[in-house]
Amino acid sequence: MPVNTMEISARNVFTGTVISIQYGQILAELVIELPGGLEITSLITKKSAERMHLAEGRKVSTIIKASNVMVALD
Amino acid sequence: MPVNTMEISARNVFTGTVISIQYGQILAELVIELPGGLEITSLITKKSAERMHLAEGRKVSTIIKASNVMVALD
Amino acid sequence: MPVNTMEISARNVFTGTVISIQYGQILAELVIELPGGLEITSLITKKSAERMHLAEGRKVSTIIKASNVMVALD
Amino acid sequence: MPVNTMEISARNVFTGTVISIQYGQILAELVIELPGGLEITSLITKKSAERMHLAEGRKVSTIIKASNVMVALD
Amino acid sequence: MPVNTMEISARNVFTGTVISIQYGQILAELVIELPGGLEITSLITKKSAERMHLAEGRKVSTIIKASNVMVALD
Amino acid sequence: MPVNTMEISARNVFTGTVISIQYGQILAELVIELPGGLEITSLITKKSAERMHLAEGRKVSTIIKASNVMVALD
Repeated sequence: MPVNTMEISARNVFTGTVISIQYGQILAELVIELPGGLEITSLITKKSAERMHLAEGRKVSTIIKASNVMVALD
Repeated sequence: MPVNTMEISARNVFTGTVISIQYGQILAELVIELPGGLEITSLITKKSAERMHLAEGRKVSTIIKASNVMVALD
Repeated sequence: MPVNTMEISARNVFTGTVISIQYGQILAELVIELPGGLEITSLITKKSAERMHLAEGRKVSTIIKASNVMVALD
Repeated sequence: MPVNTMEISARNVFTGTVISIQYGQILAELVIELPGGLEITSLITKKSAERMHLAEGRKVSTIIKASNVMVALD
Repeated sequence: MPVNTMEISARNVFTGTVISIQYGQILAELVIELPGGLEITSLITKKSAERMHLAEGRKVSTIIKASNVMVALD
Repeated sequence: MPVNTMEISARNVFTGTVISIQYGQILAELVIELPGGLEITSLITKKSAERMHLAEGRKVSTIIKASNVMVALD
């Protein structure tokens, strides 16, 4: 069973595809393409990226807690 | 000039439309519809929601710092 | 399959038992007892607590991104 | 029009001047001097620092969501 | 011994005075005045505000992790 | 007097022992062992780790704001 909105308290779970990974010594920066063409950038530890065998083309979910989403006026 | 990716360090700025607002005593919970039909939930203070005159139908940007985006395997 | 450290990028996933839930209008405050007797407090949305049917005695995992953990000297 | 408290939900927007930037492979660490002499440290991605052409002496706003501000007793 | 920058990993520790507190059912919203007249807003749990006996006029430190500070161009 | 739950608004303060430190250019990744054998990973700045003279075997407190704790169903 996947990690989805039935299982985790975070309100924002979006499925997408990893389109780039860049590694530092501690962090990995991922860009994930969501449906509709939106691209979302994520910073996770390099160890997590390696443990999860993340790579370009891998289908993943992005998870964002609602308290971390700000709003601005256009 | 709008808040966009040229102006703020946050990597994730997505334009959408407020489709619901619910108020508590301190917080406001907003649901914003993004292009492609994704719905993103945001918690901000009630005072900010009032100061910005947020309401259903209002076009806004959602802003998320990359360090607050997690990844999970489907 | 559970949400565990093989599936999510967050480095800190601890299994425990919900020992109290208190509701506001927007938020729910949960206290979860971890093995060894540690108690951890979590704020999630009331809607998530209801969707997940959280209640005292429910076994859950707590998830914390490493970038949200500070350190202090005793 | 600048990013200010009329435009973004974040409650804490302080104008200051960049006094140092240090780069890693993924991150940039900035120190910004606020009026009154307070110095605030920010971690953003290196890509954002480059995109925004941040440099010592540049006037910027620091933005902090209220839910990320803790309080301690002196 | 106070919580200060010698003791906690958070890079931003600013001393100020509580100038307002507003309570919800779960949260408390504090406004703290910093030297130089800056006002910073903090959201903490009501239980923490009560445990710490926070009140208007109380001298406190505000604590902000560097990874939670964004930057915008004016 | 230590940083404890009497002094800081963060609800989650756990005492443990540093069991590993890895350095990048900007960040340090620490693993801290808590009572009961739980291991918690923290990302702080390299400058903070150096300022605090953190090293393996050092007793520290980990501090986590309740709003940064998510919950998932097992």
